Amino acid sequence: MQIGVFPQFMPRKSQNEDAILARISDRSRSSESQAATPSVSLGIGDDAALFQPKPGYETILTCDWFLEKTHFLRKKHPPDAVGWKCLARAISDVAAMGGTPRCFLLSLALPETHTGRWLDLFLGGLRRASRKFQCVLAGGDTTRRNEILINITVVGEVRVGHAVLRSGAREGDLLYVSSRLGEAELGLRTLRQVKGPSGSNNPAMRKHLYPQPRLALGRWLAEKRLATSMIDLSDGLSTDLSRLCKASGVGALIGADDLPCVKQPGARKGRAEFPSPIELALNGGDDYELLFTSRRGVLPAVPWKFRGLPIHPIGHVTSGPNVVLAESGGRLLNLRVLSPGGWDPFRKRR
Amino acid sequence: MQIGVFPQFMPRKSQNEDAILARISDRSRSSESQAATPSVSLGIGDDAALFQPKPGYETILTCDWFLEKTHFLRKKHPPDAVGWKCLARAISDVAAMGGTPRCFLLSLALPETHTGRWLDLFLGGLRRASRKFQCVLAGGDTTRRNEILINITVVGEVRVGHAVLRSGAREGDLLYVSSRLGEAELGLRTLRQVKGPSGSNNPAMRKHLYPQPRLALGRWLAEKRLATSMIDLSDGLSTDLSRLCKASGVGALIGADDLPCVKQPGARKGRAEFPSPIELALNGGDDYELLFTSRRGVLPAVPWKFRGLPIHPIGHVTSGPNVVLAESGGRLLNLRVLSPGGWDPFRKRR
Repeated sequence: MQIGVFPQFMPRKSQNEDAILARISDRSRSSESQAATPSVSLGIGDDAALFQPKPGYETILTCDWFLEKTHFLRKKHPPDAVGWKCLARAISDVAAMGGTPRCFLLSLALPETHTGRWLDLFLGGLRRASRKFQCVLAGGDTTRRNEILINITVVGEVRVGHAVLRSGAREGDLLYVSSRLGEAELGLRTLRQVKGPSGSNNPAMRKHLYPQPRLALGRWLAEKRLATSMIDLSDGLSTDLSRLCKASGVGALIGADDLPCVKQPGARKGRAEFPSPIELALNGGDDYELLFTSRRGVLPAVPWKFRGLPIHPIGHVTSGPNVVLAESGGRLLNLRVLSPGGWDPFRKRR
Repeated sequence: MQIGVFPQFMPRKSQNEDAILARISDRSRSSESQAATPSVSLGIGDDAALFQPKPGYETILTCDWFLEKTHFLRKKHPPDAVGWKCLARAISDVAAMGGTPRCFLLSLALPETHTGRWLDLFLGGLRRASRKFQCVLAGGDTTRRNEILINITVVGEVRVGHAVLRSGAREGDLLYVSSRLGEAELGLRTLRQVKGPSGSNNPAMRKHLYPQPRLALGRWLAEKRLATSMIDLSDGLSTDLSRLCKASGVGALIGADDLPCVKQPGARKGRAEFPSPIELALNGGDDYELLFTSRRGVLPAVPWKFRGLPIHPIGHVTSGPNVVLAESGGRLLNLRVLSPGGWDPFRKRR
């Protein structure tokens, strides 16, 4: 049952699948008509969608779960943010390849109680992200469920041979991250303390609710062939850096003092239970910043800022296999082998 | 968190996400190495997969939920059948476009109790389908969940301009279906009566558990340009024919006597509560047969059988808008306007 069929034969009072599909299709129309998507030759309304990358480009495929209770809370996360984030985080994988998103498929399972206002607000957030990242709804699947389940497949494109993989890091390469780390985790912890559904005036909470995939940076690094490897930070630096190192068959040495951390959250009033900024930077998930490596020789080519976005050198690639954190403990340099300590759904949550 | 990262830094007794990803990757390797898939230039193991259709072809994109309690029952459906069916039914949408499947993304949410034997058997069924339909695992996402949730995205290809849409039916076209209708629904109802987990010696149960997407027929109809419109029967003839008619802006007249029904299931002992064969044919879901239209002038070109698969003319396309069933009631011909009565997740189940 694909999105795109409209109710006709049997007007019913209660919502049926086709009526819901019609609403989804309707609400996404304004983004669909964007001129930026000649690549989708058949969108919503058939058994499947048809897509063609530009000549000389190949297709990027990625999918992501976004599930109530696992990835968001019905009573805490505004439906608009759920709509934005489910697409933005899937698009982040395209950014991490150095590609450009083109279209997406939406699989949505909803309780009947959420097919009205909640769905409208959700689709509003989804459409905003769709417009912002020029990634149009091309199809999907809906069904009824007690819990809200979302799965997003994003389809993008990248010039043949220009995709930046996880596996290209070599000993001696320099390690970089964009912007700041641990901020989204701080936002999540702040959100949990707020009573009732939350607004988003707090910058950390905004980063948690409305992440910004670093598409322009990723694309630029790929086009200029500046990045030898790249990954987006979805599960926390300690976990994702380990993945990049594993894929490349290398290790890494990073400096605690070089990590772009949030300001002392634990120091503020009533926040004594928060992890330290360095812990947030190492193990906090959902930042969707880019982590990449670059040959040492091209150092001057990686700027401190790219279109206003800070880029921080945080260490370098070693022969491996460990990821080591260098912390200054008084006059001594303390070396600590890092374990992946970020988000893992099969481990009990910290 | 994409499939393709292996456990290294932190050997834990309990399953973690990366260990599960490693097993999925490992179990699908034998299908991955198939020579038939030069189109997937980067498979499991990065932020995303890379795909390129053959020159002159465009990419088909489709996704499908397959959820415990909604689409299958943990205690009734063998894990092997769950693995087969989740892929086969998504591939059926590619068949309905006249295309060829190439690769798929697997999103899997599992209880920790099901990361052992259940997962192995599931992956076994998935791999069998992957081999049979030459559609390789290219990536995905896993997470933990109390219930088993599956979402499959299938990527295929079709020669540019040859995809068969739902919208091409015109007044006067003839309507055809492949094989037999209502058999999978009969299989499901039989399965429900069986105690405990079920084998699959019963043909109707086999059709429910291990559906066969009609890829060869769909491709042939598209290549020969014989089908003017096409849809796969996933939710039942009454629902899917209505969808095809709506998309084409036409109606249809079908003959009850022309429908390829199952043999009288209600007549058998202890099965008095089963719907009639005609009801099964009209409203039974999950058959994954093809429903297509063809210009009247090319009638002789649509054979009675295609590679052993029966093809039945069941009626013709009208100016619309209704779908009408002609039943012979004694000496009179009884005309009944059909409502979509097949599977709709947002309606209470019959």
